[in-house]
Amino acid sequence: MPDPKPKGEKADGSAVPLTRADRARTVASVLRRQVMRGAFFGGVLPDERALIAEFGTSRNTVREALGLLRDEGLVERRRGVGTVVVGRAYEHPLGALSGLAEVLQRHGEVVNEVREARVIRPPLTVSRRLALPDGSKAVYLERLRRVDGVPLSLDCTYLIPEVGEPLLAHAAGTPRTLENHDVFDLIETATGTPLGSAEVSVHATVPDPATCAVLEMPEGCALLAVERLTFLADGRPADLEFLHLRGDRLTLHATLDRAAGHTEPAGSSLL
Amino acid sequence: MPDPKPKGEKADGSAVPLTRADRARTVASVLRRQVMRGAFFGGVLPDERALIAEFGTSRNTVREALGLLRDEGLVERRRGVGTVVVGRAYEHPLGALSGLAEVLQRHGEVVNEVREARVIRPPLTVSRRLALPDGSKAVYLERLRRVDGVPLSLDCTYLIPEVGEPLLAHAAGTPRTLENHDVFDLIETATGTPLGSAEVSVHATVPDPATCAVLEMPEGCALLAVERLTFLADGRPADLEFLHLRGDRLTLHATLDRAAGHTEPAGSSLL
Repeated sequence: MPDPKPKGEKADGSAVPLTRADRARTVASVLRRQVMRGAFFGGVLPDERALIAEFGTSRNTVREALGLLRDEGLVERRRGVGTVVVGRAYEHPLGALSGLAEVLQRHGEVVNEVREARVIRPPLTVSRRLALPDGSKAVYLERLRRVDGVPLSLDCTYLIPEVGEPLLAHAAGTPRTLENHDVFDLIETATGTPLGSAEVSVHATVPDPATCAVLEMPEGCALLAVERLTFLADGRPADLEFLHLRGDRLTLHATLDRAAGHTEPAGSSLL
Repeated sequence: MPDPKPKGEKADGSAVPLTRADRARTVASVLRRQVMRGAFFGGVLPDERALIAEFGTSRNTVREALGLLRDEGLVERRRGVGTVVVGRAYEHPLGALSGLAEVLQRHGEVVNEVREARVIRPPLTVSRRLALPDGSKAVYLERLRRVDGVPLSLDCTYLIPEVGEPLLAHAAGTPRTLENHDVFDLIETATGTPLGSAEVSVHATVPDPATCAVLEMPEGCALLAVERLTFLADGRPADLEFLHLRGDRLTLHATLDRAAGHTEPAGSSLL
């Protein structure tokens, strides 16, 4: 149980002044979104004086906020230049059930490095999510997605045999198919069946050193761990994916509707 | 630039066996989702032998996978019991434009600890997102959301004056209004204007120690940093929020539609 009387509140229920760390977090939240949205022309943040004026806060708070973004690997200080954005950030429209490549190919050359592509016996919990009989086979596909050479996500995909096997056969006959295509395209091309909907869960986690190394991420950054269960248009599950997206390079974006939330059951109101 | 020939691939283009760290990540991905979905009856994970059978992998891989989940603060080993889930995880339906409390109140007593609630002069970038004239005032509301005493999210909200000022007036006349209500309820009640849609961006980040302390999170866990710009039904922006959701306690969940992704502009296809 927490303290009976929360810290931020006086006896009469009114709020008390926040600490500098609280103010720095608030400033960092706003700047972080600007960095991720590519809002800073030329990739250089406004100088300290401008940030102090913009946020109506102290120099120390601004410095602390910039320190938070540096610790997250989003910006760095460059002598004679100021605080600059490190690397490039991309927005992934979560709404469109598009593969990431469909989005990223506008930004650079997308290549999926194939790490594994074969028939396996999936864990029971995976076969159940895919509505496969216990003991059934599945196709496992693991790929590292790069844009202009920079790894953005590590995608681990379990496909039902009716989808995965034609997909492997198609890939065997067509060089670089797995490298150059989104999983959604692959499924629709290999099976001739259109996709219907997907259930997506998004979780934030700190990656282990091996995952950092594969994604070439600086340590101290976070991952978006996305589970995506995709259905064919006829309602059968097609594949279950575990996507590991670099938190310092990718933001998920969606537009939601209040009305839908009131009328549809939770989780199905995006349709 | 990466190596010209990716590590996971042989000269003939076929994949090579993955490392144990790769297999552990795959196992951990599946188990992580089960933990977050509350799939383990009584909060106890299957024992090592069962996991080895389920995942068709070695004891060392299973141990490494469980170690990853321990490092993330999701499970711990208890002598004589096994590996148990730490704390409670919640799914937040991202699709429904519902406040988190609307979802969480099914699970326990939701209290929003008010840390700040006052008229401020917002940063320029915030006023522009809210379509306010430069130099305009706004209302800033900062609350720590707890379920049954456990902090789940720190919510920093900038409201346009036409919404925020009636909201503060309403709260002043009605004790514990801010403590007991979602921001969406507050807005609709205070202004009598229904909400329309929201633009949501989701980012993963590692919190600084001060934020960990406020959220009572173990260090080494990640945050879901959500920016949400909500519009009134008439299309005016109502508020801009920066939500800091505990990554070890909350998962965002949504159902998406492939068809919409093809016909609607990116980011607006959830409607």
